Amino acid sequence: MRGEFDFIKALKSKLTPDSSLTGIGDDAAVINQNSELQTIVSQDLLIEDIDFRRAWMPLNRLGRALGHKSLAVSLSDIAAMGATPRYCLTSIGLPENVWRTKFIDEFYDSLLALARRHNTQLIGGDTSRSPDRIVIDCTVIGEIKHGRAVLRSTAKAGDIIFVSGELGGACSGLQLLENGKRLSTGRTANPSLLTMDSFIKRQLTPTPRVALGSHLSQHNLATSMIDISDGLAADLHHLCQASDTGATIDESRLPIAHAIHQLKTTRPPADLALYGGEDYELLFTVAPANLKKLPREFDGVPITEIGVITATSEGIKLQMNGHTRPLSARGFAHFQSSTDA
Amino acid sequence: MRGEFDFIKALKSKLTPDSSLTGIGDDAAVINQNSELQTIVSQDLLIEDIDFRRAWMPLNRLGRALGHKSLAVSLSDIAAMGATPRYCLTSIGLPENVWRTKFIDEFYDSLLALARRHNTQLIGGDTSRSPDRIVIDCTVIGEIKHGRAVLRSTAKAGDIIFVSGELGGACSGLQLLENGKRLSTGRTANPSLLTMDSFIKRQLTPTPRVALGSHLSQHNLATSMIDISDGLAADLHHLCQASDTGATIDESRLPIAHAIHQLKTTRPPADLALYGGEDYELLFTVAPANLKKLPREFDGVPITEIGVITATSEGIKLQMNGHTRPLSARGFAHFQSSTDA
Repeated sequence: MRGEFDFIKALKSKLTPDSSLTGIGDDAAVINQNSELQTIVSQDLLIEDIDFRRAWMPLNRLGRALGHKSLAVSLSDIAAMGATPRYCLTSIGLPENVWRTKFIDEFYDSLLALARRHNTQLIGGDTSRSPDRIVIDCTVIGEIKHGRAVLRSTAKAGDIIFVSGELGGACSGLQLLENGKRLSTGRTANPSLLTMDSFIKRQLTPTPRVALGSHLSQHNLATSMIDISDGLAADLHHLCQASDTGATIDESRLPIAHAIHQLKTTRPPADLALYGGEDYELLFTVAPANLKKLPREFDGVPITEIGVITATSEGIKLQMNGHTRPLSARGFAHFQSSTDA
Repeated sequence: MRGEFDFIKALKSKLTPDSSLTGIGDDAAVINQNSELQTIVSQDLLIEDIDFRRAWMPLNRLGRALGHKSLAVSLSDIAAMGATPRYCLTSIGLPENVWRTKFIDEFYDSLLALARRHNTQLIGGDTSRSPDRIVIDCTVIGEIKHGRAVLRSTAKAGDIIFVSGELGGACSGLQLLENGKRLSTGRTANPSLLTMDSFIKRQLTPTPRVALGSHLSQHNLATSMIDISDGLAADLHHLCQASDTGATIDESRLPIAHAIHQLKTTRPPADLALYGGEDYELLFTVAPANLKKLPREFDGVPITEIGVITATSEGIKLQMNGHTRPLSARGFAHFQSSTDA
């Protein structure tokens, strides 16, 4: 069976972008608005039983989580271009029995709260009935100074690879939910429950790194950037393919999410950090000459050096205890199977 | 049960549009781009078994139809603002068994063909698996000279009401499909089959009136405009509510789709023209002083005077044989239940 990536590759060959357009196949599209500004647009689809399950929580709480997440994943794409979000549109399809609940009120309250935090206005969209599953598609429109958009295709051999925040948390939260664990309803002081809650929240309500992305583009610090939606390894592959480079990652430097070891998962924590998706952290590269200007923490979020961009011929590798091995894009099957076009 | 319209009304009250924004609740959102141009954005969701059925035709043919229709309905929103479409993004969720077919190739070939006809570029979107139903969400971004966007909220009492093209065809096509009729596969000379084919095509591949909308705004001819997606009566109600006016429609003037009487439908043809949705014709109002400048045909499409805008207190009425009666928004239940936010 033909995969979605192959299809998108074939589709791109049919498109004939003109001079007003760059960034096709990047996190977001870049349109020339005028000589000073470019418009950045991203659109992301969330479908019940592909991206989330109704059984995870009561409907009103799910509405709240999805209002946040549907906007957050598109904001993250805008962040990965270094742009500033301005507007959003949301299409939502709901079954009759969901329309009857507080789901949609909670959804929009939560979406609008996140939008407000990013000075982003909801300007439109579409609402529809759906036969049985919840469907959400969110578009974010941002802007950036002309020529400042950070693409995934512009990394150079010798650039140092950085990642924001911690990795593997969202994926661990997903595994907890898929294994029947739920957010604790009341207040709890049980440290084990608190840890599980924190991972589930990483899955449900990711924080788009908008201010960091914007800082990196404004100060010309990142030579390339992508957000981690499919997993560090998969998104590093996307970045290296687009840039026509190799890369070597140092496993010992990976900022693995705090407390993952407490979860007693069946997988090594490093695997969760490498292959678990939806952390929505920024993966970016910095030229050696700019290393001094790069903050190692931004708004309380750590920025960690994890490797180096190499020549294409070197391939994409993982280094551990002095040994290197090829780093595959996907280490284990992923619940989500969504691909930016 | 609370309806979608009530919800959208409640949602609008939560939004705080700023000075860079008009048109919320219109066919499309209007954003100030710079002092010369405004950006127009519309987004429309199509869901299997709400907006279309897989049983209607073979998958590759359905892909072709939906590639056209998903873009056409958003282009129609842009047309209804009088704007020029520039870019589009499409999110699509497909079940595994549809991914394996030529559906998506046909979908994009058809979408790109329509996009090309309107100098509109596909710049992004999202692809995803879906558990069992096809889901499509299409965004179109257009532009227009500052202040030229034609809103639905600016009709004035005394303005004359016009509609482009013919009405009732798309709805008749839908009824044929729902009654088990299919597009004829080969060439046919059977006039009855040809008539049915023409109605089914009106349902599946509507023609957005982009050039007409643009002509009306460029020459300042329309005082208000909306596209007919929910049906003439329903969309006239939307226009009058937004403009705070009444209206009187002359039933004898309705441009009922040619050959509807051959279909032997169970409903009067005028009902199909009034209450059948998805014709995607333009409904607009013209000040009496501008009537001479208005063409009565544009690109081969007739433009028909059907009534007059009145004071709010007059209500929304239908005139026939010298009698008038209130015109309700919806005369019969509608297969589609999708509402622009």
